[in-house]
Amino acid sequence: MTKSFSQNQLTRYPIYLKILKELRNEGRAFASSRLIASRLGYNEEQVKKDLAAVTNNSGVPGRGREVQGLIDDIETFLGYRDSTTAVLIGVGRMGQALLDYPGFADMGLDIIAAFDSSSDKIGIEINGKAIMDVSRLEEMMPRLNAHIAIICVPASHAQSVADKAIAGGAVGIWNFAPTHIAAPAGVFVEDVNLASSLAVLSHRIRDILKED
Amino acid sequence: MTKSFSQNQLTRYPIYLKILKELRNEGRAFASSRLIASRLGYNEEQVKKDLAAVTNNSGVPGRGREVQGLIDDIETFLGYRDSTTAVLIGVGRMGQALLDYPGFADMGLDIIAAFDSSSDKIGIEINGKAIMDVSRLEEMMPRLNAHIAIICVPASHAQSVADKAIAGGAVGIWNFAPTHIAAPAGVFVEDVNLASSLAVLSHRIRDILKED
Repeated sequence: MTKSFSQNQLTRYPIYLKILKELRNEGRAFASSRLIASRLGYNEEQVKKDLAAVTNNSGVPGRGREVQGLIDDIETFLGYRDSTTAVLIGVGRMGQALLDYPGFADMGLDIIAAFDSSSDKIGIEINGKAIMDVSRLEEMMPRLNAHIAIICVPASHAQSVADKAIAGGAVGIWNFAPTHIAAPAGVFVEDVNLASSLAVLSHRIRDILKED
Repeated sequence: MTKSFSQNQLTRYPIYLKILKELRNEGRAFASSRLIASRLGYNEEQVKKDLAAVTNNSGVPGRGREVQGLIDDIETFLGYRDSTTAVLIGVGRMGQALLDYPGFADMGLDIIAAFDSSSDKIGIEINGKAIMDVSRLEEMMPRLNAHIAIICVPASHAQSVADKAIAGGAVGIWNFAPTHIAAPAGVFVEDVNLASSLAVLSHRIRDILKED
């Protein structure tokens, strides 16, 4: 498949997966696009298009597609079945929350080590992951065969940490620091920017409150 | 102003703000759209359009717009100067990280209380915020005059907690649970879906790794 997927479209697949697993747990073997669309409040045509892009299973008229087959195809598409190795940098509250989160392994993300600059943290383990000195990041990335760097440091350190991770071979940056990270071609930066998310929420609710 | 703003456009304003504060800290009184665009790797025309939508300050030819004036206008636009009251539900790792985060107050988000179902947590305070029994959520929302509910509970409880918050008067849901939340018209749901964000990252880096 050489289809290209928009950012918005990609974000929908984990949500389809969630709903499909719910349907499976309810004992349903088949699901129509209409049913999936209604559960999610999505447009039915969009659901059809999204699913057709990742599965060859075109379904049975009147019954829909096989639920387990769809789950398998979406998990394969999302790479949940071949894991990618990541390191996490910055073991504050957010970093710890991510290190503790059990769900990433099922999504094909294997966080194998963490880095911090604080001597209180270097040398300890969280959830079985060793915390190393951030000064060793560039040297350790290739030794760990890690392709993703998860950045959880304060905004002021984010770029310099990302630069070191990229020098060490990172091709993906998952950025939780509230700032922009510049990266060369061949490196993809995905931001989890809570300030931006909050900006959307605040703007929309001010519109709602004004209507009252 | 009755302009309508796309989701993508709204997410850019906190990033402009960050860069403008950096420019101010570097001692610059004026900034051109070109300079801002180059710092962010954005298209210059887009920067012009975005800024024109939220400021009446059209700038000085050859010098650009006044940095402090732009900061003021964007902060006003984003509502950072009139705070909105929120409650947080689910005081696990993620919930605690959000309760501890000092930046939200500057963004106009005032988290005044938290709710949990665990007797270990009910009655304690985190960062000066009392944790109450989640069974009191619906009753307390209007008493606290809270318009936003920040949902940090497990996916399986997210909808029922959101329903209670909405019954208590929430018009905005900031959803950190990895699931879809259905809400009636007049309620806006903003998702921080790490699974979706990771799906984008994984897909893009697989493309990059394949190119090698």
